[in-house]
Amino acid sequence: MTTPLTRTDCAALDAADPLAPLRDQFTLPEGVIYLDGNSLGVLPKATPARVAEVVQQEWGVGLIRSWNTAGWIDLPARIGDKIARLVGAGRGELVAADSTSINLFKVLSAAIAIAREDNPGRRVILSERSNFPTDLYIAQSLARQHGMELVLAASEEIAARITNDVAVLMITQVNYRTGLLHDMVALTAKAHAVGALAVWDLAHSAGALPVDLTGADADFAVGCGYKYLNGGPGSPAFVWAHPRHASRFWQPLSGWMGHAAPFTFDTDYRPAEGISRYLCGTPSAVAMSALECGVDTLLAAEPLGGMAALRAKSLALSGLFLAQVQERCAAHGLPSVSPAEASRRGSQVSLACPGRGYAVMQALIARGVIGDFRAGDGSPQEPDLLRFGFTPLYTRYVDVFDAVTALAAVLDSGEWQQARFNQKAAVT
Amino acid sequence: MTTPLTRTDCAALDAADPLAPLRDQFTLPEGVIYLDGNSLGVLPKATPARVAEVVQQEWGVGLIRSWNTAGWIDLPARIGDKIARLVGAGRGELVAADSTSINLFKVLSAAIAIAREDNPGRRVILSERSNFPTDLYIAQSLARQHGMELVLAASEEIAARITNDVAVLMITQVNYRTGLLHDMVALTAKAHAVGALAVWDLAHSAGALPVDLTGADADFAVGCGYKYLNGGPGSPAFVWAHPRHASRFWQPLSGWMGHAAPFTFDTDYRPAEGISRYLCGTPSAVAMSALECGVDTLLAAEPLGGMAALRAKSLALSGLFLAQVQERCAAHGLPSVSPAEASRRGSQVSLACPGRGYAVMQALIARGVIGDFRAGDGSPQEPDLLRFGFTPLYTRYVDVFDAVTALAAVLDSGEWQQARFNQKAAVT
Repeated sequence: MTTPLTRTDCAALDAADPLAPLRDQFTLPEGVIYLDGNSLGVLPKATPARVAEVVQQEWGVGLIRSWNTAGWIDLPARIGDKIARLVGAGRGELVAADSTSINLFKVLSAAIAIAREDNPGRRVILSERSNFPTDLYIAQSLARQHGMELVLAASEEIAARITNDVAVLMITQVNYRTGLLHDMVALTAKAHAVGALAVWDLAHSAGALPVDLTGADADFAVGCGYKYLNGGPGSPAFVWAHPRHASRFWQPLSGWMGHAAPFTFDTDYRPAEGISRYLCGTPSAVAMSALECGVDTLLAAEPLGGMAALRAKSLALSGLFLAQVQERCAAHGLPSVSPAEASRRGSQVSLACPGRGYAVMQALIARGVIGDFRAGDGSPQEPDLLRFGFTPLYTRYVDVFDAVTALAAVLDSGEWQQARFNQKAAVT
Repeated sequence: MTTPLTRTDCAALDAADPLAPLRDQFTLPEGVIYLDGNSLGVLPKATPARVAEVVQQEWGVGLIRSWNTAGWIDLPARIGDKIARLVGAGRGELVAADSTSINLFKVLSAAIAIAREDNPGRRVILSERSNFPTDLYIAQSLARQHGMELVLAASEEIAARITNDVAVLMITQVNYRTGLLHDMVALTAKAHAVGALAVWDLAHSAGALPVDLTGADADFAVGCGYKYLNGGPGSPAFVWAHPRHASRFWQPLSGWMGHAAPFTFDTDYRPAEGISRYLCGTPSAVAMSALECGVDTLLAAEPLGGMAALRAKSLALSGLFLAQVQERCAAHGLPSVSPAEASRRGSQVSLACPGRGYAVMQALIARGVIGDFRAGDGSPQEPDLLRFGFTPLYTRYVDVFDAVTALAAVLDSGEWQQARFNQKAAVT
């Protein structure tokens, strides 16, 4: 593709984009260019009415009967089957439940149990140093519990560190800071070759790019409902186990929804067959229903080429952004820490902006362009970042052009120097 | 109180009831008498608008900014402080989070860790045989993990079984089957006297009767958001740790929301001080906001005497029900398994109805009186039950009278013999 240099060129790309109608599925605020769908997806138009129906009719009128009559009890499996279509999992293999952190605890516990049985001497859980913190925290907890060691490697050193002391490899497929896309097929194969298991966090890949858990022969996976799946703030997450593992062990969060027969109220826990045993307590019917609306916005792309088509557009958008920044913000030195090579890039671009990154992002947000800021550790290896997500369902080429225009203006004018630090939360 | 024998007497009680206006806080379906608020509370009138605001304004317009500007990040602590007022906990000691099952895993893990440090030889987790299954399942899982033994005692034998081999006593304050109210003060004192810890599940007591965790010197507690707290189907739950324990151990679900500084994105987990470390992943802002509306309906009773006044009404309602059933259904033999003594009774009444219980409840529901059915194990000790909850916020004396009228009609007419078994789920 020749880099489009004008806004008119970008508008022409939008006009020719077969995926453009998918944007009509969403409510987007006026005057905002939203490049943070990798942190919190936007509101589907269908969601308010569906949530109102669940609250007012199913709960308000149906009351307790709605567990049966409105199918609340089926939500985790029904939504799970829809998500499965996005990540290369089979029907009945994936459920929506709890949070990503809690689901990771379940699958990592199971993976450790399997590894200890099959390879008793192994003590290493291997992950990426810049993996999202909650993944590392959960792994730390389980490492403490099981007398194992959490080993962290730099992104480019992970493959080499998969040696025969590794029990479990645990990686987020797309790095939340850099947007680096790890090779699920190669890393899983390498893990298996040394006798280790591979656990994948799909937080920044499910709904962003084609994922093929079955094709990659992955062992376990978890993912997030509120980023690319547009399930709403703090939406339930999801969990998958390869069928060869799903029924092999208790996962420790053995709540009643994971029982083989929850409504017989047995005194003894007897885990359900398959992925259902990865359920725990009672899920929020309201939050689950909002998640389903979000997932449906992705399934709506299936007749238009599905995740492969969305992936192509996502890369076109992020490639455009990289080229535009290079061309129009060159004087300000904002090197990308995201892979230039499209095949190694997720659906985001992160620009190093040491020292003034927070202020620049605040000034950009004041102009209506919402990305986010991720602090580094002060080292050249982990600088402060401006992070921009390109969600192909609703981001237009003109949005990318206009965002770079705003970024250039913030830098050229120096208005970022007026921005104040008043942020309390910054949810990935 | 003289037992009111006529519907007119009941209407007079309602007319004189200072708590009667609290019912106006709720949307109740026409033609339904709802006696299942112990399983799923009803819809507060404030909830639909609040949920719509969270979805359409805070999420739809505010997007990621709402973590700060709409205070999403503060929801677990803010709602926790409100719930704390209902259960005798201090400010900053309780958070809303996750499900009851998951919160029980957290506190039981911490209690076991403390017990193993303070009393290394102890191996017994003691609970009630007819405790709600998910509590037993979580305890089973932790007993397996830690090489401990889950010992189950009949309700009336628990106190005697608290001996010096017990590490942790784990009891649901009000039994979900019988409505038996355990003596939190006495059982906690006995546990402490033998050097054990006391973990309380408040699922059927928080919002149903006065609870005083601090006064009872309890060690840990969890509770449910969707029963007496009216938070909606599958609402987030809550968790409390006595301040003497809260910062003592990692709880194993060490997600980023429990980190001392979640937004510095540290590689190492460093638990927050106090109860905040019992948070794990990202909570649903929608589900949390609905829970807050539910909790507010109970706080609205504070100027009218609060939980003490609600408790008095609850006992009047359940006492009326017991007396009416005895008087008007005597021919059909429906002995109560709930304590006749008011001080030992929660906010529900369960009638033994072996063999035909499910059909009777279905026929009753067909008449618009919603209670629920709990299967027994076929033994005389654990019969099939018709279960009726009396939530004093919105149940009227005439509702009790009319419910017994319907029950008598179902039994007198034999119409229960037409009821079909078509139930898939029966959520406590």
